[in-house]
Amino acid sequence: MSKNLSGRSRCIIENVAPEIDGGKFPIKRTIGEKVVVEADIFADGHDVISAVVKFRNEKNPGWTDAPMKFFEDDRWRGEFAVTELGNYFYTVEAWINRFQSWRADLKKKLDADQNVFVELLVGADIMEEAAARAAGADADTLRDWAKELRGKKFAAARALDKALAGLMNRHAGRKLASVYEKELRVVVDRELARFGAWYELFPRSFGGFHGCVKQLPRLAKMGFDVLYLPPIHPIGKSFRKGKNNSVKCKPGEPGSPWAIGSGEGGHKAIHPELGTLKDFQHLIAKAREHKIEIALDIAFQCAPDHPYVREHPQWFRKRPDGTIQYAENPPKKYQDIVPFDFECDDWENLWRELKSVFEFWISHGIKIFRVDNPHTKTFGFWEWCIGELKAGNPELIFLSEAFTRPKPMYRLAKLGFTQSYNYFPWRNSKDELESYLISLTQTDVAEFFRPNLWPNTPDILTQFLQMDGPAAFSIRLALAATLGASYGIYGPAFELCENTPREQGSEEYLNSEKYEIKHWNLSAPHSLDALITRVNGIRRDNPALQSNRNLIFHHTDNPELIAYTKSTDDKSNTVLVVVNLNPHYKHSGWIDLPLDELELDRQKTFQMHDLLTDARYLWRGSHNYIELNPAFSSAHIFRLRRHVRTEHDFDYFM
Amino acid sequence: MSKNLSGRSRCIIENVAPEIDGGKFPIKRTIGEKVVVEADIFADGHDVISAVVKFRNEKNPGWTDAPMKFFEDDRWRGEFAVTELGNYFYTVEAWINRFQSWRADLKKKLDADQNVFVELLVGADIMEEAAARAAGADADTLRDWAKELRGKKFAAARALDKALAGLMNRHAGRKLASVYEKELRVVVDRELARFGAWYELFPRSFGGFHGCVKQLPRLAKMGFDVLYLPPIHPIGKSFRKGKNNSVKCKPGEPGSPWAIGSGEGGHKAIHPELGTLKDFQHLIAKAREHKIEIALDIAFQCAPDHPYVREHPQWFRKRPDGTIQYAENPPKKYQDIVPFDFECDDWENLWRELKSVFEFWISHGIKIFRVDNPHTKTFGFWEWCIGELKAGNPELIFLSEAFTRPKPMYRLAKLGFTQSYNYFPWRNSKDELESYLISLTQTDVAEFFRPNLWPNTPDILTQFLQMDGPAAFSIRLALAATLGASYGIYGPAFELCENTPREQGSEEYLNSEKYEIKHWNLSAPHSLDALITRVNGIRRDNPALQSNRNLIFHHTDNPELIAYTKSTDDKSNTVLVVVNLNPHYKHSGWIDLPLDELELDRQKTFQMHDLLTDARYLWRGSHNYIELNPAFSSAHIFRLRRHVRTEHDFDYFM
Repeated sequence: MSKNLSGRSRCIIENVAPEIDGGKFPIKRTIGEKVVVEADIFADGHDVISAVVKFRNEKNPGWTDAPMKFFEDDRWRGEFAVTELGNYFYTVEAWINRFQSWRADLKKKLDADQNVFVELLVGADIMEEAAARAAGADADTLRDWAKELRGKKFAAARALDKALAGLMNRHAGRKLASVYEKELRVVVDRELARFGAWYELFPRSFGGFHGCVKQLPRLAKMGFDVLYLPPIHPIGKSFRKGKNNSVKCKPGEPGSPWAIGSGEGGHKAIHPELGTLKDFQHLIAKAREHKIEIALDIAFQCAPDHPYVREHPQWFRKRPDGTIQYAENPPKKYQDIVPFDFECDDWENLWRELKSVFEFWISHGIKIFRVDNPHTKTFGFWEWCIGELKAGNPELIFLSEAFTRPKPMYRLAKLGFTQSYNYFPWRNSKDELESYLISLTQTDVAEFFRPNLWPNTPDILTQFLQMDGPAAFSIRLALAATLGASYGIYGPAFELCENTPREQGSEEYLNSEKYEIKHWNLSAPHSLDALITRVNGIRRDNPALQSNRNLIFHHTDNPELIAYTKSTDDKSNTVLVVVNLNPHYKHSGWIDLPLDELELDRQKTFQMHDLLTDARYLWRGSHNYIELNPAFSSAHIFRLRRHVRTEHDFDYFM
Repeated sequence: MSKNLSGRSRCIIENVAPEIDGGKFPIKRTIGEKVVVEADIFADGHDVISAVVKFRNEKNPGWTDAPMKFFEDDRWRGEFAVTELGNYFYTVEAWINRFQSWRADLKKKLDADQNVFVELLVGADIMEEAAARAAGADADTLRDWAKELRGKKFAAARALDKALAGLMNRHAGRKLASVYEKELRVVVDRELARFGAWYELFPRSFGGFHGCVKQLPRLAKMGFDVLYLPPIHPIGKSFRKGKNNSVKCKPGEPGSPWAIGSGEGGHKAIHPELGTLKDFQHLIAKAREHKIEIALDIAFQCAPDHPYVREHPQWFRKRPDGTIQYAENPPKKYQDIVPFDFECDDWENLWRELKSVFEFWISHGIKIFRVDNPHTKTFGFWEWCIGELKAGNPELIFLSEAFTRPKPMYRLAKLGFTQSYNYFPWRNSKDELESYLISLTQTDVAEFFRPNLWPNTPDILTQFLQMDGPAAFSIRLALAATLGASYGIYGPAFELCENTPREQGSEEYLNSEKYEIKHWNLSAPHSLDALITRVNGIRRDNPALQSNRNLIFHHTDNPELIAYTKSTDDKSNTVLVVVNLNPHYKHSGWIDLPLDELELDRQKTFQMHDLLTDARYLWRGSHNYIELNPAFSSAHIFRLRRHVRTEHDFDYFM
């Protein structure tokens, strides 16, 4: 019987949500967001139950209660908001509310005209017990009530008094309450973890850090929040790759920034051609002036001439011929890269050293890391490393670049990665986009996996982008920037609609910037910079676009037209996006809007304001016509302007 | 880093199934059944993984391995059979299979004609490590292989030898294996927990225990496994209920057996009019001779004159006027019943005493208990009580009679109840039956909740049964006995198609046997005994009908016709049931059989043998015609007889 410390606690609490892998992993929120907690709560018999969500910030030992309400089928719901960075904890408490049970029964008995003399005495006892828990005026009031109930002249219906019920709830007896056996965790990040626009460029193509500084005003004007740089470290010289990933490297070719380390240093050094550490810190500071943050790429792999290989040979796998095992995916060989051996005996020192790489850059002002191929390093390392780093620096953001199978990608997110690359680049048709985005935003996945949508990267020039020039790029931009609260572009190539693959069927760029220095003419007339600027402005002005969970797809009668809305909780901001997914042809069709969900009156006209073109359309009812010609625009991004009132012949929209 | 005792274990094991409420509750099986375990298993990188389900009986500290196989999307599956009563435990172990990884890479390199000189040396090292783990001949063989691989003349392709791969798997290095963090439990019951036919009767209507003994040959012939008796204890005298639940009881009226306890004794006593304890033990012994077990009803509530009320007043709630609180569901009062107060200070002694009631009857030979209204007693009590009792008596069976909301019903099953009453009595239409049975048999619910299907009980005369006589009863019998591996009837009333409600709209019987002694003419010509005998015989002869998880519904083009199959795992026994759900009218239609799932050749004729009528039909293809006239029979119970071969003009079916 020892297991049941109090066998008298009669409430059952089960199936608490959100709860990831039985509470093994935390859910994620950003500051100001709410956590809606649900649980199945019930007890034996028919007594009335009360329940609360208990929550606390990690710095605060004391719990705060948020009330839960029954909504259906023994399911209860409550919510709280997170207002500080770091960890929150939550659990559920429920108890038999003896007073409310008594009150409900009393009402039924009174309705049936039964004698309730003894019931009033029972009620008086319950009130006196509550008075003993209360203090001051509340205690006095409760004792007065108890005395009254015991009086011969008491009119029984008065015991149903609402103020009394409220007072009794405040002093409910929780001695026999049940508390859910787990304390569940929330990791609270800053807003940029949820909402932001990323821009990737290779600093060496812009003249190093000084050149990057010159790009900042333009990027700020375009509305980017994060400037992400591929690895900035010295590049290996042995087995260096040449232009177009050639195994032969001609003299003067710069090599891939992901082949890290040379005699000039490793993961804590800067490639001399980009500038000095001081130059880098200058870039960080100037970016901050433009409200742009620098994100650094951390790729845990070494060129064969990386200092680690010499200094810590025990971290690499040795082959029987005495050489170090290079990376391979047979029959392919990557002789310019040697991987760490996470099974090595000295794994603890390896882990510590890798963590110290992050710490080095954090100490120089970096708070955002894009992590290269985290799925090829042991998973346990990430849980430990990110956990340790975020304990002291809850503002850190880690973007996981794991393009692998879904479950390893989700696991990395559970283990601590703040955001994740994902399959968006390859989801093109309406069905593909809808089912994938629903899986990311409308399931438990949304609790721990924050997608960052990239239409292109230096590694990914999709078949879709290769199809056609500006229209294909515009389509993918509109989708990425409105489906995803976080999105990013490999910027120069995207702005200029660069779409030539290395060869037919390849997703690699011809003359990829990964292996050579490029000179981009960013003021070319075909640049998409104006569109990008407009889209980023729309994102900033419309809070509905700053979340993912509020995504709702709508029916269209043409499979080339995709339509979806996002709304703020209070419906004060609703954005409807319609995209013609075909970059070649005009498409038209009818879309169906759920007027009730959008809180629209089906008798009244409402205005759809296209924020891309500033055109305004008057719509009425759920069924509405759309026509999009890629020659002009592939997308509408409508802000819904609700009808306020009609005075004479003037219409006002808010 | 302390949390990661070995950061070198690279395999991730998650989403293990079955796992009920994060492993808090066990799954259920009967002896001989298998447990299919699935898990998501993956690691960083591209190495080859091996995995096993580890399982053990509670009496055995050592684990046995059952191999797991990858089947899709990082999901693996393995299985084991349970062969002893009591508890089993299972978990999952996975490791990087270094040899298999090496072998897979070697093959790719050989296919690409690469030089593998160094790879062979690596392989030799791996083999020598395995040899050190192996012993005897295996070790010698592995060392020989290693030596050969190091030889200059070794033909590399020979290293792909299958026998070598098998040998290496047997001695795989599991030093860095990952083991799932939970040990999950299986409760293993005897076969009767899964498969059985129950018959309920009131012994007092048959002249007490001696009269029951006389019923045994008939019940055995009809094919019943369990004879369930309502409470056999002394019945309270104060506030005793009269005929038809009247609050006024005339002298000589026997009262409800569920109003337990009087001056003659309580839950451990026998009502003198039924016989003595010795008579009861004689009934148990005679029943055993007929392969029938007696199930006892345990109803934890007291008549006001139960000895507990006097001896343990602290177990009941006292009202301020000094009286004991009787049961009520306002405005209804049940003054013939006083409930236990599970919140009382002396709860531990209350729990012990209630458990001792079971122990008393167990010591007198009872192994099956039907528990009355368990959802009105504190849930924690059942987990503790059933857990303690089954620890010493794993053959015990507890049937939960909780007709309440789904979640409390499921919770009781999780807490330990072996079987459960359920909503079957009120699921009448095809849609209702299909969705409900799917929820019970094709979801996680099937892991812990074993439905026992009762078309009627002394409390439940459904509207459906009231509609029409024999046809309605035949329909519900066919459904209960074939949808449910366990089913039961409140027998005399069911056999005789007793269907008069107390009043229009009521589900209570007129002149209910709960409040009076009945005299049943079981040899009346309209009795369904022949049909029941036939159905029970079919259930015994066809193992497909002895499980629930194998239930598959099939499409019919007439909503009055429901069709489903059950098959044994090896498909040696397949039963197709088709029921006309309308008791009034003939219905016909076409049903679609999934030939591939049933492993039927679409080019060959197969035979459908109606085991109810012995009629045989030749079918071919998936689309087949059915016609059922309730005037003759409302159901087909077909055994599928597969076509074996044709010799000249003879057809053979097996």
